[in-house]
Amino acid sequence: MTTKQFLDNLTINTDLACDVLTRFIREEIGKAGFGHAVVGLSGGIDSSLIAYLCSEALGPENVLGVRMPYQSSSQESLAHAQMVIDALGIRNDTVEITPMVDPLFARFPDMTPLRKGNVMARQRMIVLYDQSAAFGALVVGTGNKTEALLGYSTLYGDGAAALHPLGDLYKHQVRQLARAMGVPQVIIDKPPSADLWPGQTDEGELGYTYDDADQLLYLLIDRRYSLEEAVEAGFPAEFVREVWRTVRRCHYKRVPPLIPKLSHRTLGIDFLYLRDWGT
Amino acid sequence: MTTKQFLDNLTINTDLACDVLTRFIREEIGKAGFGHAVVGLSGGIDSSLIAYLCSEALGPENVLGVRMPYQSSSQESLAHAQMVIDALGIRNDTVEITPMVDPLFARFPDMTPLRKGNVMARQRMIVLYDQSAAFGALVVGTGNKTEALLGYSTLYGDGAAALHPLGDLYKHQVRQLARAMGVPQVIIDKPPSADLWPGQTDEGELGYTYDDADQLLYLLIDRRYSLEEAVEAGFPAEFVREVWRTVRRCHYKRVPPLIPKLSHRTLGIDFLYLRDWGT
Repeated sequence: MTTKQFLDNLTINTDLACDVLTRFIREEIGKAGFGHAVVGLSGGIDSSLIAYLCSEALGPENVLGVRMPYQSSSQESLAHAQMVIDALGIRNDTVEITPMVDPLFARFPDMTPLRKGNVMARQRMIVLYDQSAAFGALVVGTGNKTEALLGYSTLYGDGAAALHPLGDLYKHQVRQLARAMGVPQVIIDKPPSADLWPGQTDEGELGYTYDDADQLLYLLIDRRYSLEEAVEAGFPAEFVREVWRTVRRCHYKRVPPLIPKLSHRTLGIDFLYLRDWGT
Repeated sequence: MTTKQFLDNLTINTDLACDVLTRFIREEIGKAGFGHAVVGLSGGIDSSLIAYLCSEALGPENVLGVRMPYQSSSQESLAHAQMVIDALGIRNDTVEITPMVDPLFARFPDMTPLRKGNVMARQRMIVLYDQSAAFGALVVGTGNKTEALLGYSTLYGDGAAALHPLGDLYKHQVRQLARAMGVPQVIIDKPPSADLWPGQTDEGELGYTYDDADQLLYLLIDRRYSLEEAVEAGFPAEFVREVWRTVRRCHYKRVPPLIPKLSHRTLGIDFLYLRDWGT
């Protein structure tokens, strides 16, 4: 299927979104006692948009964009990340992860591509968190709402960050905001990919398009449609069931680790404070 | 200071704790569709106790204990982890992290010992999560309540796990349970250490003993004493202030990344389900 019937639901006020998100980035980094952001630049639309938002929020001199290629990463990805660096004038560095991940690949030669992809995503987290310590910065995450709902990210890898400014925007909405903020068109237009092997695309792996998923997720999550109502609205029953199964099955990625209650007050159960309690 | 006045508050029923925690481990791993556990074995009391609990909960053949030394790790740590492996008969492996972390240390030669320690803790997370994928297992965390409250752990490193069975036990209570379950006495008696450099101890770095911290934390957290009431109870005012400052300052480690609200329903704000929603 490819429907466009419900795409209008996803239209956002990009001026307002830009305003809210830049304030959010500035305030939350400030509350933590910092003035800098570290962003991993993959050359894709999400991390490019985050670089634009951070640069707008903090000034380009206070943003560090880090490219972290593996030996098989595409040259195009590197070039697209460089376009963002050049357009914004942010600080930047390139840290090859190949020498860090290859020893583990060699230690377990039967490692599947999925396991390798997770190792690479987590290795990039290590580099970003280390650079945030060196730079006096917070790591700003690049995940969006579609990815988070579909679990299409690596736990403790690209999912690990202090802030997720795009976490309440579906991919379709990320594209709108990226266009409004001037992210290079070639980055907006190319098929989203984790760039783990040549020809890999998100939509190829998911088995459906982001536009289809976004329209359905909006109805199920934001509008609280039942599965039956989504089918009545025109989505194929098997697609609805599969997306919903995926949303539920990956829920563990969206919640903190469990602690069993043994005492009067337990972390995460009845010892609960907002994130900025300590600031 | 070293007071023992409030230690009795921390006495637990070790039979009950063992029963609750082994059921918790078995049920939560089962709900996730697995029957196996992966544990990083440092040779310290927390990870040793977790190995004992997992072995009791799942059977030793369903537990994988992984030793992950860095080149400067002490031989004693390795030997103590081996004692646990031998005593329980669990599956085990040893994965040196030296070749994985040294390239990053070389890339940033001015890296501080604190940054290096965090890189090592996160590298161990990568190995454990990868092994959990290979073994069809959940990573069982080894953090306790004292560490979590004082932030004495690495975010996305040793703090990263599916379950934290010891997360509601203070260090003093971990010792009681370890004794009751038969963890080797030499592991219980040695000074807790992250083993990042020779002679390093937790209590040396914190600047106070776990027993002192545990007694104070119990009053502040579990009994909701005010800071003034804790001072009146006999704790030095400066110690109370410092511990409380530490508890609050590291709160960000105990809560998920922030997502700014832009839509009808936002992850972590009004899209909220228990961890086992999808199981």
